[in-house]
Amino acid sequence: MLKNQVMKLFGIEYPIIQAPMAGGVTTSRLVAAVSNSGGLGMIGAGYLSPEQLREQVKEVRQLTSGYFGVNLFVPNEYRVKEKEVQAALERLHPVRSQLKIQSAEPVLPVYEKDLAIFHEQIQVVIDDKVPVCSFTFGIPSEEVIRALKEQNTILIGTATTVKEAIEVEKRGMDMVVVQGSEAGGHRGDFMEGSNESLIGLMSLIPQTVDSVGIPVIAAGGIMDGRGLMACVCLGAKAVQMGTAFLTCIESGAHPEHKAAILKSTEDKVVLTRAFSGKWARGIQNQFIAGMRGDENTLPEFPVQNALTQVIRKTAAAQNNPEYMSLWSGQSPRLAKSVTVEELIKDIMDEAKTILTAVQ
Amino acid sequence: MLKNQVMKLFGIEYPIIQAPMAGGVTTSRLVAAVSNSGGLGMIGAGYLSPEQLREQVKEVRQLTSGYFGVNLFVPNEYRVKEKEVQAALERLHPVRSQLKIQSAEPVLPVYEKDLAIFHEQIQVVIDDKVPVCSFTFGIPSEEVIRALKEQNTILIGTATTVKEAIEVEKRGMDMVVVQGSEAGGHRGDFMEGSNESLIGLMSLIPQTVDSVGIPVIAAGGIMDGRGLMACVCLGAKAVQMGTAFLTCIESGAHPEHKAAILKSTEDKVVLTRAFSGKWARGIQNQFIAGMRGDENTLPEFPVQNALTQVIRKTAAAQNNPEYMSLWSGQSPRLAKSVTVEELIKDIMDEAKTILTAVQ
Repeated sequence: MLKNQVMKLFGIEYPIIQAPMAGGVTTSRLVAAVSNSGGLGMIGAGYLSPEQLREQVKEVRQLTSGYFGVNLFVPNEYRVKEKEVQAALERLHPVRSQLKIQSAEPVLPVYEKDLAIFHEQIQVVIDDKVPVCSFTFGIPSEEVIRALKEQNTILIGTATTVKEAIEVEKRGMDMVVVQGSEAGGHRGDFMEGSNESLIGLMSLIPQTVDSVGIPVIAAGGIMDGRGLMACVCLGAKAVQMGTAFLTCIESGAHPEHKAAILKSTEDKVVLTRAFSGKWARGIQNQFIAGMRGDENTLPEFPVQNALTQVIRKTAAAQNNPEYMSLWSGQSPRLAKSVTVEELIKDIMDEAKTILTAVQ
Repeated sequence: MLKNQVMKLFGIEYPIIQAPMAGGVTTSRLVAAVSNSGGLGMIGAGYLSPEQLREQVKEVRQLTSGYFGVNLFVPNEYRVKEKEVQAALERLHPVRSQLKIQSAEPVLPVYEKDLAIFHEQIQVVIDDKVPVCSFTFGIPSEEVIRALKEQNTILIGTATTVKEAIEVEKRGMDMVVVQGSEAGGHRGDFMEGSNESLIGLMSLIPQTVDSVGIPVIAAGGIMDGRGLMACVCLGAKAVQMGTAFLTCIESGAHPEHKAAILKSTEDKVVLTRAFSGKWARGIQNQFIAGMRGDENTLPEFPVQNALTQVIRKTAAAQNNPEYMSLWSGQSPRLAKSVTVEELIKDIMDEAKTILTAVQ
């Protein structure tokens, strides 16, 4: 495989990007291991404070001299609806009781505060000259894009439909990650109606490649050399893999989360709004099952996320996977407990074998 | 690409199967053109009477000396719930008025009758020594499988999850079509809970290939050489393409149906139970939009199908796409109005170009 423009821009040997999973998964050790093994490591900074982000960027730089990136959540305006919140809290009460949670009711998020934090995160990316910055849940403002481009930061948008990818290009991003319906974690849709589409990569990659001029990076269900080669055939310049790196030794995912993926099957992976108010894909557990009937009436992101935070934290502390958010893509049968170096070597070896076999 | 076992068994030059679309799409001309162009043509016989099937098999044989196949729907027991039917009829009444339908209320289906017709269809396949027979909505009985195998008919099951594919193999089918969430038309799920999974091909193909010994055929969103090569990389031995053949010159799809696909985009393609009572993927129109709120309370297949038949037929006669079932996979942007021969040539040319490019 010849070096394509994405690999050249990132200075990487293989067209493999580690998905920026938020919530403690992307430890500095994981990010650096990916960059040191020929891929691009990404810090999932969506939930990090500016100080934590600055600290982690420093830490990653001590562990690798390679390129790496940061992913940020673009804040979207939301309204805290008192009635909805009360109903959700009542709905969550039995879970709190079951986990013996004594703490006071959660503090609700404030949009203006989220936006201020986002701008501070951007300032860290600028100050520390982070080489790559990707965005989820939307496209940042013109000012933010201009400021980052002045630093030569490579900008990546996230899209779940061709229309979103076209918008990402129009607004000046350098590349676009297309997130197939197979992907684990939060859906990255940001345009009206996109959320219903749930387009699989077999459809999403070629239709996007035909419609935009910027490089397309594929994400969703890709776990090995077969997935990498398939995405390359469909026209993607690189793949972004989440679940495959989540179960790696270096990942900071909770041991119960890793274990749940390693023993799961494709039909146990479902979409739910119960944890955060935004649709996300993870392994079915008691929490999701219990909230099934309320999926459409829960508060929106990040309100529901704030309401369930103590539940997720307590469940993690109690090693109880039934109330943790066990994000996973649709290919859990292909997950392995290996080092990042082994994973990337296996992927590239398999890709080479396929290339020989299809001749 | 070397000839694989599927191509050898089918005596075909290219690993391309035309999906057996029911409802008049798979004319003898279409089926024969596919077989004459190096692929495998399939008669979508789900809604054909035994007499019609016998007639079409004869017709196809007059147009091609190549292999071809027949697809049948395996009947599943259902109950006609009087209240549900009444509610659905009331729901459909404004649509009937709008289309000026004067006919009496529809005749409801009877499971025992469906089963008798299925056995007669099987008898046609046996009598006429049809070389290939595939099944949707389930796996036929042991007796049926044995009778077909005695005639050396190659049997293909349809699966939407790895678990269903394992069951298809266990019950003695020779191959399995895995239907990704991208696929147009009816979902082929038949095991409890499968319907919720909606697994994309990027996840479904490799996990199935690892779990069964029989050849895996991929279906869903595949439209060109890129899709073919991607599926081969993921481990599929052939692809089954529906929408790509539906818009071909030789297809019997309604001109308004073809036109709707040719101008549609990926985000307009939705899942609905409104037409038949079974989840199916098609282009959003007024009928689907109007039934949105009732999706989960409609009678099951084939009851709802019987209730809407006159609506679909009348809309077709009136050239009104807003009340027809416009089945389509998630890749409508890749659909073309070409002959079958051109389509297959384009696919194979593109596949060869990709093979050279990825070196």
